[in-house]
Order: sequence, then C-alpha cells, then structure tokens
Amino acid sequence: MQPAIADLFQRIIHLSDGTTGQNRLVYTPRWVAAQKALIAFAVAQDLSVSVDDYGTVYMDLPGRATAPAIATGSHMDTVVHGGQFDGLYGVLGGLQALLTLRDRHGQPHQTLRAISFSEEEGSRFPTTFSGSKHYARLADITGLTDDSGASFDTARITAVTQLQQLPGVTRQLPALPKSFTELHIEQGPRLITTGRTIGLVSAIVGQRRFTITVTGTANHAGTTPMNQRHDALQAAITLMSQLRVTAATAESQLTFTVGQLTVSPNTSNVIPGKVVFTVDCRHADDTVLGAFETAMRHLVNQTSAPGITASIIRWVHDKPAPLAAPLLAANRMLATQLGFDPVVMDSGAGHDSEIMSRVTPTTMIFVPSVNGISHAPNEYTAPEDLAACIKLLTASLFQQAY
Amino acid sequence: MQPAIADLFQRIIHLSDGTTGQNRLVYTPRWVAAQKALIAFAVAQDLSVSVDDYGTVYMDLPGRATAPAIATGSHMDTVVHGGQFDGLYGVLGGLQALLTLRDRHGQPHQTLRAISFSEEEGSRFPTTFSGSKHYARLADITGLTDDSGASFDTARITAVTQLQQLPGVTRQLPALPKSFTELHIEQGPRLITTGRTIGLVSAIVGQRRFTITVTGTANHAGTTPMNQRHDALQAAITLMSQLRVTAATAESQLTFTVGQLTVSPNTSNVIPGKVVFTVDCRHADDTVLGAFETAMRHLVNQTSAPGITASIIRWVHDKPAPLAAPLLAANRMLATQLGFDPVVMDSGAGHDSEIMSRVTPTTMIFVPSVNGISHAPNEYTAPEDLAACIKLLTASLFQQAY
Repeated sequence: MQPAIADLFQRIIHLSDGTTGQNRLVYTPRWVAAQKALIAFAVAQDLSVSVDDYGTVYMDLPGRATAPAIATGSHMDTVVHGGQFDGLYGVLGGLQALLTLRDRHGQPHQTLRAISFSEEEGSRFPTTFSGSKHYARLADITGLTDDSGASFDTARITAVTQLQQLPGVTRQLPALPKSFTELHIEQGPRLITTGRTIGLVSAIVGQRRFTITVTGTANHAGTTPMNQRHDALQAAITLMSQLRVTAATAESQLTFTVGQLTVSPNTSNVIPGKVVFTVDCRHADDTVLGAFETAMRHLVNQTSAPGITASIIRWVHDKPAPLAAPLLAANRMLATQLGFDPVVMDSGAGHDSEIMSRVTPTTMIFVPSVNGISHAPNEYTAPEDLAACIKLLTASLFQQAY
Repeated sequence: MQPAIADLFQRIIHLSDGTTGQNRLVYTPRWVAAQKALIAFAVAQDLSVSVDDYGTVYMDLPGRATAPAIATGSHMDTVVHGGQFDGLYGVLGGLQALLTLRDRHGQPHQTLRAISFSEEEGSRFPTTFSGSKHYARLADITGLTDDSGASFDTARITAVTQLQQLPGVTRQLPALPKSFTELHIEQGPRLITTGRTIGLVSAIVGQRRFTITVTGTANHAGTTPMNQRHDALQAAITLMSQLRVTAATAESQLTFTVGQLTVSPNTSNVIPGKVVFTVDCRHADDTVLGAFETAMRHLVNQTSAPGITASIIRWVHDKPAPLAAPLLAANRMLATQLGFDPVVMDSGAGHDSEIMSRVTPTTMIFVPSVNGISHAPNEYTAPEDLAACIKLLTASLFQQAY
C-alpha cells in the first residue's frame, strides 16, 4: 500500500491495542474512532465525504458526469478477535485506487466512490450486512439488542451522530452506483495452496443451516443392557455418517459441516438422552442445496426408530448470489494484461457484495489468505499480493470511470 | 415394610422436601438429620448403636457369641436429585430384618449388624465408597474439596461429631463381619422386563473409563474445500463407529457407552478443531475389558491421519468383584423354598458390596426397578417386591446367625 494509506491502516489497526486481534464491533467507541480516522483522512484529501444514518462512509471523487457512481469498498467492522485484513483491506484498497487514479488522470468521467460499510459480520447484534442492506434500500435493521442488552437503535444513533457532525461530512444516503467491486481476502486456502495471486469471484454460494435434534432415553451406563438402550448419541452418529456420505456423493463443491453438537446430560456414566447438532451446507447452485436438503430430511425421518425420534429445522436459507459476468470477464482480461494468471472461483463466505449484487452489477477480487486463515489474529496476506489486487482494482476503475 | 420402619422411611424421605428428588449429600445437614433419625429409632429399639469416624452407623443386635457379626446394610447418601430407594432400601430393609428376627426368635447366636454407610455415591466429593472403605480398613479418604471449596475433612468432623454425641451412641469402628449381604434396587431393566422379583448377584462388573481427544484444525465452514479439511468431529465420528462395532463383536454382556462429548469451538459455521469424548465399558470378566481396551487403543492410534491426531487416557480401572458363591447358592435355595424364582445376574453398577467383598464373604439381593429407572426422582419399586426381598434377607440372616 502507498505510504499514507499504509499509515492510516496502522492507525486503525492500533485502535485494537490491548485486545486479542482486531475488535471493531459496530457502533462501539473503537469502531467510531476507526470511521473518524478514515473520514478525517478522506476530508484532508479533498474527497467528498458523506455518512448515511447507518454509519456507512462514502468517499467520492466527483466525476464530470456526477451520477451514477462507480463504487468500490468493503466493511469497517470485524468479528471478535479478528484479523487485520478482513474488510479493512477492501476499504483502504479502494480508497488507494481512487487517489492513485486522481494523481495519474485527474477528474474521472464517472464519480468514483470508495465505501466503508458500517457492519457486515453480525458480531455484535444478531444481524448481518446492515450497512449494505441500507445502502441497497433492501432493509433498515432496527429493534435488536446485543448480548449485554444494549439497543441497536440507541447505539446507532449515538455513534452515527458523532460521525455526521464531523467537519467536511454531509449527512446523506447516496444514490445506487452503476457497479460495485469489492476487494477482499479469500478466507480460505485455495489461492495460497495453488500459488495464485488473484481470485475473480463468479458467485457467492448459497447457504442453508439446520438444527437436528435426536431424542432417546438417558439411562445408567452400567446396568442397561446394550439391546435395551435408546442411545441418542449412537443414533446421531449413525445419522451424521449417512449425511456425510450423502454430501460427498452430491457434488464435489458442496460443503457440509457439522460445527456444533451438544449431548445431554453429557456425563460419562449416563447413556445420552438427547443430542442436538447443526448442519451448514453451501453451494453456488441452489438446486444442489435443495436436493441435499431433501435427502437430509428423508434420512432424519428414517432415524425415528423404537425409542428414538429425530427432527430438523432450517434456520438459514440464503440463495446463491451470482456476480456480474461482464465485470468478471473484463477483470480477467485486465489481470492477464497486467501479467497475472487469475483463478475464477466461488466465494464460500458471505460478503456485502451479495447484497449489492441484487441492485447493481457487482464483482469481487480475492487476495490469498496465508494458510487459509481468517477470523483470527494471525490472518495474513503478503504485501505484494495486496498490492497486486489493488493494481487490478485501479485498472478496473479506470476502465469504468475514465 | 413394617409400619414403624415405613414411618422412618417416610420421615427420612421428607427431609428432602422442597428439593427435586432426594438430596442427602454426605455430611450436609440433611444427611446428618437422616442418620440422626435412624440412630434415634435404633436406640429406641434397644439396639447397640455405634458410629465410626466417617459417620457410618452400625446397629447391632448382640448375639450370644459376640464376634464376628453377620452384617447387612447399604448407604445413606444419595446422588443429586436421586430416588427414594437407592441405598435407603438396603439400610431400612436390613434393620427391619433384624427387628423381625428378634421378635420371632429372640437373641441370635451371632451378632446381627445393620449398617448405614456414610457415603457411596461420590455425589459431593470426588470419591466413592468412602464409608465402606473405612470399615473395610482399605482406605481413609482425606484432603478433598467439593465444588464450593468446602473441605471433606472439616465437613466430616463437624457432621460426625454431632452423631457420636447422641445419647446411646458409642464412638467405635466395629470389627469386620463374618459375612455381608446388601439389599439394593437393580437400577436397570432386566428384572422388571422379565417379570422377576429377586436377583441374586454373582459379581459386580469391572469398569474402565477413558477420555479420547481428537485434534484437527478449526476453519471456515464455507471457504475450506472438503478435501482440505482436518475436521476433528468427522474423525471422531469415524472412530466412535469403529469402537461400537468392536464392542458389539467383543462379548454380548460388554457395555459400551460414549456418555460425554464436547466439540471445540462448537460453532455452526466453523469446522471443529477438537473433540473430547469419554468411553465407559463394563464386564464381569477383566480379560474381556483388557482385550477391548487393547483394541480401542489400536483404533485410536490408527486415527492419527494427516492433520488429525488422537490420544487416549484411562482414568477409571476397577476390577470385577466376584461375590461369594456359597452365599448366593444358599440364597438361591432359600428363595426357591419361599416360592420365588430368582435370577442370577451381574451388577452393572458399583456398590459398597464390591468393597466389602475384598475383606469378607459378600452377596447382594436385587429388587426390580420399574422401567429400569434410577438416580432420578421417579425411581420406583412396588411394595410387594420390596417385601419379598426383605423376606429373603430375613431368612438368610436367620440361617447364618441363629
């Protein structure tokens, strides 16, 4: 990154000093300080800065034709104990691209817009993408509380008022852009294990999550003969084995994860009476997810044997978000011209781009994650890789806005 | 039960009013009140009452030949939220047998002793059978604390002093008996499902418990391809499936239970990085347990694949306790003479009898548990079954002491 941007990056990173990893949860003082630092920098750079009522920061390089803008950006918030690059890289990378283009080419034809979305991770309040949902005019989140009982609405108003009152800031919800490009770390191992630098994202996978409950009868581990048991954990093990075989034969790209499992009463000398576990499955093709769900429900129904019952509820049902093929094709050519060998791939994680894709042509550019690690303090991407994707973004914005 | 004993039973049961089930944890005020009620009753019945320094109560009907005594009894303590019959039935059943024999036959030749062991369940301090271990001169438990930090030694001295100071009580550790017979509920379903009334216990099964840890790598459930995962839960599922097949083919009587399992980080969208689970296995033949342990260790070692490691520790290793065949044979004949059809069986749960069996000929008589339920408030045995086994015990004590 350029020195001034690198310095801003460090200042924002160091706001989390004294904690483990990065901890910019939406509307907290640390989050406010980060958006303030960004705003101050952008104002000092003579960008046109707006803040909407959800706390998203828009930094415009006005074009000769003022609307619609060509936009880039990502989210300012983090998970608890997060990494330095998740979201912040896309915010500052986009900002750097804007400033580089102005230095080299002066005023663009279309307005260029760098965005710092208020919230994406769902790490404080039980909601995700509240910033991009507001910009996209899809939903205005309200009425939530965090684990300490704090009100989302109160926290939002308190925090956003501070930002909107800063010198050089306009309180405004800008119009939708003509396109949106998000730089982001891959958060997975595919780029790094294949030694590639640039990922061009064709779609954000659809995602479904389920909770399955298996009920038997808790009983004495020593005195209950093996053929008189209704062991919920043994039944759950059988079911989970069947589910993973089904997932493996479905489609090679289908991800299937049992991430959470609890046993009751969870005592070494008591036969388990109840087991509750989750299933997280993802794929870019919604019919693949639908077929897997159907197969899974069938297996759950078959689990009900004498003394054993099983039930399933679905609590996440996000459809895949295909991204704009023309933007991807253009970036592929630009990347090749710049001497790179980009990989076309899905995103297995959700991003603001999935929201933006519903209202404007959208694409993503991935940088490698060392060891595939994300959502952890040791999240890392090498500086040359960060620079490479900012170079591609800059070329793409030039192509669209100049 | 006889009216006076039935009344004492009710008084002790009602000490747990206001709680869920029975809650006489060793050395608590409720436990002290229960032993006090028992002592007062026995003293009023002109029995010779001693209390040792661990709080076990001995109620003697002195014989013409004073030593060694023919003993019966069980434990006064309960688990948390326990049932009404576990332990207390054996204490009061034994006491009733003594009083019946005195009423009918006067003074016995051998001293008859009814025992209320202080602690068997391990429900307050991390130890079991501390009462019978002290009587058997096998171990004097000391130095423990309960979950609230209370000291075993302080609690013991405080409680036992109250009992030893009661009128009619001698502070004494009696000599070992010539035999020991324990009445107890089966705590399993075998008698009740076969419609039988009396179980004659040939052995208390040996028991081994293990903790197995499977370690992989926690990672993002969406962005980590299926063939690049080190999923500790999937590896654990495979291992547990192999273990249960091994257990099923070992010996039909081998009980195998995975009672406790925890997943880390236990989040729906994170691939599990670590799983810890317990194995509880029991059998009356120690070589069967040894062979199963060897097979299990082999399977654990085989679990270590790229990115996955597994380890195992054993933390319970109780050898089987065969009980006295001559006593069982005698009880079998007595039961048949009384018109019953007794079942010879193992005990899958531990009892004070396993401790006593190391120092004196010991046997157990089981009554049915309705639905096999124990260690729960709805533990139940029909009055006619309770009476039938007390009748057998009375006949056995008569045979041995008169």
